[in-house]
Amino acid sequence: MSLKAISATDAASLDKDLMEIGGWSLDQLMELAGLSVSQAVWKIHPPNAGKNILVVCGPGNNGGDGLVAARHLAHYGYTPSVYYPKQGKNELYQRLRIQLETLSVPFIDDFQSALKTTDFLVDAIFGFSFGGALRDPFGEIVTQIESANVQVLSVDAPSSWDIQGGPPKEGPGAKFMPHALISLSAPKPCVAFYRGRHFIGGRFLTKDITDKYGLDLPKYQGIDQVLEIGVDAEGRL
Amino acid sequence: MSLKAISATDAASLDKDLMEIGGWSLDQLMELAGLSVSQAVWKIHPPNAGKNILVVCGPGNNGGDGLVAARHLAHYGYTPSVYYPKQGKNELYQRLRIQLETLSVPFIDDFQSALKTTDFLVDAIFGFSFGGALRDPFGEIVTQIESANVQVLSVDAPSSWDIQGGPPKEGPGAKFMPHALISLSAPKPCVAFYRGRHFIGGRFLTKDITDKYGLDLPKYQGIDQVLEIGVDAEGRL
Repeated sequence: MSLKAISATDAASLDKDLMEIGGWSLDQLMELAGLSVSQAVWKIHPPNAGKNILVVCGPGNNGGDGLVAARHLAHYGYTPSVYYPKQGKNELYQRLRIQLETLSVPFIDDFQSALKTTDFLVDAIFGFSFGGALRDPFGEIVTQIESANVQVLSVDAPSSWDIQGGPPKEGPGAKFMPHALISLSAPKPCVAFYRGRHFIGGRFLTKDITDKYGLDLPKYQGIDQVLEIGVDAEGRL
Repeated sequence: MSLKAISATDAASLDKDLMEIGGWSLDQLMELAGLSVSQAVWKIHPPNAGKNILVVCGPGNNGGDGLVAARHLAHYGYTPSVYYPKQGKNELYQRLRIQLETLSVPFIDDFQSALKTTDFLVDAIFGFSFGGALRDPFGEIVTQIESANVQVLSVDAPSSWDIQGGPPKEGPGAKFMPHALISLSAPKPCVAFYRGRHFIGGRFLTKDITDKYGLDLPKYQGIDQVLEIGVDAEGRL
């Protein structure tokens, strides 16, 4: 199966369309995005493979998707913990944090220790709006993740990768190749550099939207909120 | 399996707690409630049993759950249509309607004709906040539903039933016994009068909440957002 990619600019415009024309709130979109992330974790790493899931959240919407995913994972019977070194100011993120606290999901401070003991990691640091260099503390965090012996699911893009150009030539992320990637709404161009299991989530696009942005509507199965898609021999979608 | 029921007063207080203490927005709660309704429809009436689903929505949050469910059903490959004779003023309901319109889900006017041709009906007219008599046009609608030859899933309570006391002694709803019922968060006391398939949805309660209201935390399976629960020989939970 092949799915067309969407540029960072178009992805931002698509989100704006969903909210300004399509009637969506960020709460709703993030709920379904995070739900699809949690379902991808279930498919890749079911609870009997180890219940400790470390969710690393960045300061923006990618981090918010991670917070929603952590909540669903807690309901599925996992024991998630969250590392959230730079909490975004949006009140939605504050509410997502409260939801996790009422479920007794810990927000940890010692990332290095947590990384050593987790069974699986969700990289929800940066998504399609990432550009430029990794600011502290995320450079150090990505360096630790890429050298850790743990399977990683990246949300929307491997954090540190340029959305168009893929992995950085050197420094943090240059060797980062997560075990799995979940693209939200549509793959970003950097998937051309990706080798690993690839999922798509965010089951809310309409035909008008996919037509406008020249995208494919993924063929989700049944009631699944996530779909695994393949890459061809050259790793291209 | 048995699950404790929650009174209408406590159900309202529980929703308030989720939003004022638990960090939830109505958008998020309604999204997960409606998602669980759509998953119940899938379990009861998969698409190969007939794709035409008529979702009848009331003016309040029960109707909102129905609108969300209709959207998910459209994504699952059903061809839902919505009857929404008294649209609520809340801007969330307006946005949910727009989401359906961008999916080309029709809002129908001729309920009587739609009822004759639908394969399945979702009753999202009234939920736990219902009390008193059915106001127009809902008396007539319930009368038509209860005499129609179509399977019905009621959301939270069979519409027209008293939340505490069950079916009315006479008039619209006196003979209304839907094929299936999905209780949201927790069963309402009127389930004592219910005979049929019974599901629970709304996978977002915390232990603090279930403890406060003396409820059970349903044992959802895997990533399911809905769980079928049994009734004993006397029809009691």
